Amino acid sequence: MAPRKKLKGLVAATITPMTPDGKINLSVIRQYVDYLVNEQNVKNIFVNGTTGEGLSLSIQERKLLAEEWMCQGKDKLDHVIIHVGALNLPECQELARHAAAMGADGIAVIAPFFFKPTNKDELVAFLQKVASEAPEVPFYYYHIPPLTGVKIRVEELLDGIKAQIPTFQGVKFSDTDLLDLAQCIHKNETGEFEFLYGQLLGALALGASGAVGSTYNYLGRQTNLMLQAFAKPDFALAQQYQFLTGEFLNFVIKLGFGVAQTKALMTSVSGIPMGPPRLPLVDASSEFVIKAKAKLDSIVWPNGD
Amino acid sequence: MAPRKKLKGLVAATITPMTPDGKINLSVIRQYVDYLVNEQNVKNIFVNGTTGEGLSLSIQERKLLAEEWMCQGKDKLDHVIIHVGALNLPECQELARHAAAMGADGIAVIAPFFFKPTNKDELVAFLQKVASEAPEVPFYYYHIPPLTGVKIRVEELLDGIKAQIPTFQGVKFSDTDLLDLAQCIHKNETGEFEFLYGQLLGALALGASGAVGSTYNYLGRQTNLMLQAFAKPDFALAQQYQFLTGEFLNFVIKLGFGVAQTKALMTSVSGIPMGPPRLPLVDASSEFVIKAKAKLDSIVWPNGD
Amino acid sequence: MAPRKKLKGLVAATITPMTPDGKINLSVIRQYVDYLVNEQNVKNIFVNGTTGEGLSLSIQERKLLAEEWMCQGKDKLDHVIIHVGALNLPECQELARHAAAMGADGIAVIAPFFFKPTNKDELVAFLQKVASEAPEVPFYYYHIPPLTGVKIRVEELLDGIKAQIPTFQGVKFSDTDLLDLAQCIHKNETGEFEFLYGQLLGALALGASGAVGSTYNYLGRQTNLMLQAFAKPDFALAQQYQFLTGEFLNFVIKLGFGVAQTKALMTSVSGIPMGPPRLPLVDASSEFVIKAKAKLDSIVWPNGD
Amino acid sequence: MAPRKKLKGLVAATITPMTPDGKINLSVIRQYVDYLVNEQNVKNIFVNGTTGEGLSLSIQERKLLAEEWMCQGKDKLDHVIIHVGALNLPECQELARHAAAMGADGIAVIAPFFFKPTNKDELVAFLQKVASEAPEVPFYYYHIPPLTGVKIRVEELLDGIKAQIPTFQGVKFSDTDLLDLAQCIHKNETGEFEFLYGQLLGALALGASGAVGSTYNYLGRQTNLMLQAFAKPDFALAQQYQFLTGEFLNFVIKLGFGVAQTKALMTSVSGIPMGPPRLPLVDASSEFVIKAKAKLDSIVWPNGD
Repeated sequence: MAPRKKLKGLVAATITPMTPDGKINLSVIRQYVDYLVNEQNVKNIFVNGTTGEGLSLSIQERKLLAEEWMCQGKDKLDHVIIHVGALNLPECQELARHAAAMGADGIAVIAPFFFKPTNKDELVAFLQKVASEAPEVPFYYYHIPPLTGVKIRVEELLDGIKAQIPTFQGVKFSDTDLLDLAQCIHKNETGEFEFLYGQLLGALALGASGAVGSTYNYLGRQTNLMLQAFAKPDFALAQQYQFLTGEFLNFVIKLGFGVAQTKALMTSVSGIPMGPPRLPLVDASSEFVIKAKAKLDSIVWPNGD
Repeated sequence: MAPRKKLKGLVAATITPMTPDGKINLSVIRQYVDYLVNEQNVKNIFVNGTTGEGLSLSIQERKLLAEEWMCQGKDKLDHVIIHVGALNLPECQELARHAAAMGADGIAVIAPFFFKPTNKDELVAFLQKVASEAPEVPFYYYHIPPLTGVKIRVEELLDGIKAQIPTFQGVKFSDTDLLDLAQCIHKNETGEFEFLYGQLLGALALGASGAVGSTYNYLGRQTNLMLQAFAKPDFALAQQYQFLTGEFLNFVIKLGFGVAQTKALMTSVSGIPMGPPRLPLVDASSEFVIKAKAKLDSIVWPNGD
Repeated sequence: MAPRKKLKGLVAATITPMTPDGKINLSVIRQYVDYLVNEQNVKNIFVNGTTGEGLSLSIQERKLLAEEWMCQGKDKLDHVIIHVGALNLPECQELARHAAAMGADGIAVIAPFFFKPTNKDELVAFLQKVASEAPEVPFYYYHIPPLTGVKIRVEELLDGIKAQIPTFQGVKFSDTDLLDLAQCIHKNETGEFEFLYGQLLGALALGASGAVGSTYNYLGRQTNLMLQAFAKPDFALAQQYQFLTGEFLNFVIKLGFGVAQTKALMTSVSGIPMGPPRLPLVDASSEFVIKAKAKLDSIVWPNGD
Repeated sequence: MAPRKKLKGLVAATITPMTPDGKINLSVIRQYVDYLVNEQNVKNIFVNGTTGEGLSLSIQERKLLAEEWMCQGKDKLDHVIIHVGALNLPECQELARHAAAMGADGIAVIAPFFFKPTNKDELVAFLQKVASEAPEVPFYYYHIPPLTGVKIRVEELLDGIKAQIPTFQGVKFSDTDLLDLAQCIHKNETGEFEFLYGQLLGALALGASGAVGSTYNYLGRQTNLMLQAFAKPDFALAQQYQFLTGEFLNFVIKLGFGVAQTKALMTSVSGIPMGPPRLPLVDASSEFVIKAKAKLDSIVWPNGD
């Protein structure tokens, strides 16, 4: 395995653009890449994850999307991580081989969640069989217990993981158990692993490496300013960004916020036609989009935006 | 749509045989069909469902299995229902078309459960898009809230369903909400729908049509005797069969009973090599198999078996 | 322990009448007893349970209510079972002694549910310490996992229970696990235990003894007719009663149905002023009461009611 | 209401000492106070909460305990907050009046959780009726969704709370939703409210006031050193304390850690005989105590302890 670029900063969980009749729309991805890089200052992406409706896509669609992101992101993006998780092992493996063949910077795998692994060994056995199909590609475990119901603690998973999965690179940590996250970071004294977290400021205080989130599609620039403030350190300024972001999220959560709403909001904010979500998701109401956009526009960021 | 055969009696939820290295093993399905028909007196099957690890199989594997069951079951089985549900719509549709092309007697679809439909309309919209790909094939909704978390009541789903899904034929009802089941049966006065239930005796009292279950792979003969007793009616005799079956299930539930255990037990009882389950499931312990088989052998059925 | 009367037929889970300012209203209990006996043909009651807001009452209030029901029910009611469960053992024990001193026909105890017992032994240890304070009074375990989260199977609990709780008499079974209920009934071949169930018809098919329910406050007469039909046996007639009751319950469940709604409906049906529920419950809307009452009035029962 | 002392620093959630036969043991509370103040440098306590088995105690016992803590803590402790929550309103109110009469520095109330409030208004209505019985005593809402299942967001609760509960002082925040906590802190720009959190370091980064926890019974001194490091600011040092504490907690969580285990560990660490827990809790195994104590002793704290 060649020396690896270090992942730094924000990672946008990409939305999957669709045509009005519900087919994937590859034609706007070039524009999407430019928007992330130029408007949001985000150069890392996580493709075909939850926000990208990855599990609502066929294997063939997932491959086409991964190819398009790799192709359009060439020389523009720093890291393209492809989510290759699925309920069944053969297709996970097929997607892993495909990502490796394209030269993806990383692959990620969600825990299977119809039949659920009941302990660390069962989970690692599954992950190992996927990772070994892409033996040169950094491997991330996608830990999202609120959606999968698989609550095996990451801190426990890490013990000896390199012996079983030599490509193990880190965790997309989408859980609220900060005790677990803090211990993961503690165990990672040598810095070999990366922990990508959602709720950024609290996690930075604990030492998280970065963040993967769907909000960075439209709040990437402001979040980058928060990271700068934190690094300076100007803690009070960082808190201000965190609070304003939180205020927006609280607002939309009360209206009902999910993947479909993110998609519609992104269309409104970026001007890129993201199209409808796919069933069983249904499109956000125009009332939601109007209110959410107005709220976003009403925020006065410390940098004067 | 041609006049349809009426589904009667037990439906075995088939197990998917695998080779020791975890590939699907089509070669024993012929033997499996004969065992069901000759030894268990079961002539209806439900393929690629939960017991069949359908969601742990690739699309390609699911097609091969469906084809083999159709082929081997020809002239021997009465009803072959293919489960075509998946998290993503394109593959559900592809499997539905495939089942239709083969001449399956029915298709069934589980509710999507990563993104979950939140109301009846969203669920029906999803089901409708699958059903319409097989416009000549009777359609069953596979209702299994304990695994999917989708708790939309079937009784509500039935209202007007025929207008949206003309092929709607019934429900595989894998929930414990008997109030819901009872109302479904009540609404079905004309008998146009079929309700296939697991916990058989209580459901028969309410008027259920039949049952789909994994136990009928090895307890089909005894359960058929229970149905005969109930129809006679010899209620006390029916209760005896129910109690003995329940006693066995209670015994194995305490040992830890699931799809992997069913698979191993079936190998032991039938002599057909079912092979291991697929990850994330792990094989049952030999201790389990020995104890479960001994318990089964120790039961003295009313017919002297 | 003196020879015990056998509990037969329906048991009404009593509502606790309150004054408009939220104090318990003992003055209408006499009228309530007469209504149950004369209008609903129900002669057994379960006092201070879920429907009675027992856990929202102080210990002192629970004693006063128990005394009033005992006093007014004398020579009119057959069985008065007092629920004495609470989160803390000393008050459970105090209520058990109080019920015994009054000559209650039975006491019942819910599983503690803040700290939850994690296995049978812990649960039985708790129940035993309550039961032993009333060594002459038949003891019922109140099994209601949907509210307590305590899912220890009753079938398992019964093993050896008489050795630890000599007064053990039965279970108020408020769960949907019919497999568990069926095994309980199976283990009870000698008939020493009583199983009181809610969803009556399916349970009767399995052999349940009777039923405790809040619906018998206003549907006791019709449910008694169902029991008669079942005993005859006129199974089709029994099903008709079950279906009509179910249709009503489905209707109100869709409107939002709980203890507060039961209370308001009872006021409307019986004319007895039940008053408001206590916080955190809030009173049912008048819209609910009007719709629910109209639905009830619209049902044409087989006996012409 | 007289000008109020400001709550600062750690708050120990007290354990309730019991005699070997399970009665409350008031005789060791004097020693317990001295241990907290002198050995752990903790001068604030939270009495009769979860750790104190408050909901497993009778009303009478809760009063006696509150009195003893007030009496022994006089001139030694800074803040004594009494938890007065219960499932029923009359007893909550009685305990609130009792705490006020003793001159408690604060009262706290858990959300009722048998019948659960379903929205903010229902919850506030309940809390208001308790708070108004102690109109001079600072009021804390005890937010612990993992145990109560009441998930109403605190951020929402705060809106207009002072108009309904003039004594509202803050929240004991025992949830993992940091987005909620961050917004609470944001809304509290004027500093009128206090947020007492468990997972300390992440919360401090967001601006929490202090912490209530059972660990401060035996790790108070080290946690105080962490607070000092954070205030300095010596962030790296603070992280070290956090990590070591987390390492200990992870260790005991894997062994099975709860209120009973905390109690036994405290006996071992402090030498104060805390006695057994009360049913349904059962005593920790001696194996647990030995292992946990050894782990604690093995930690090398940055200050050389």
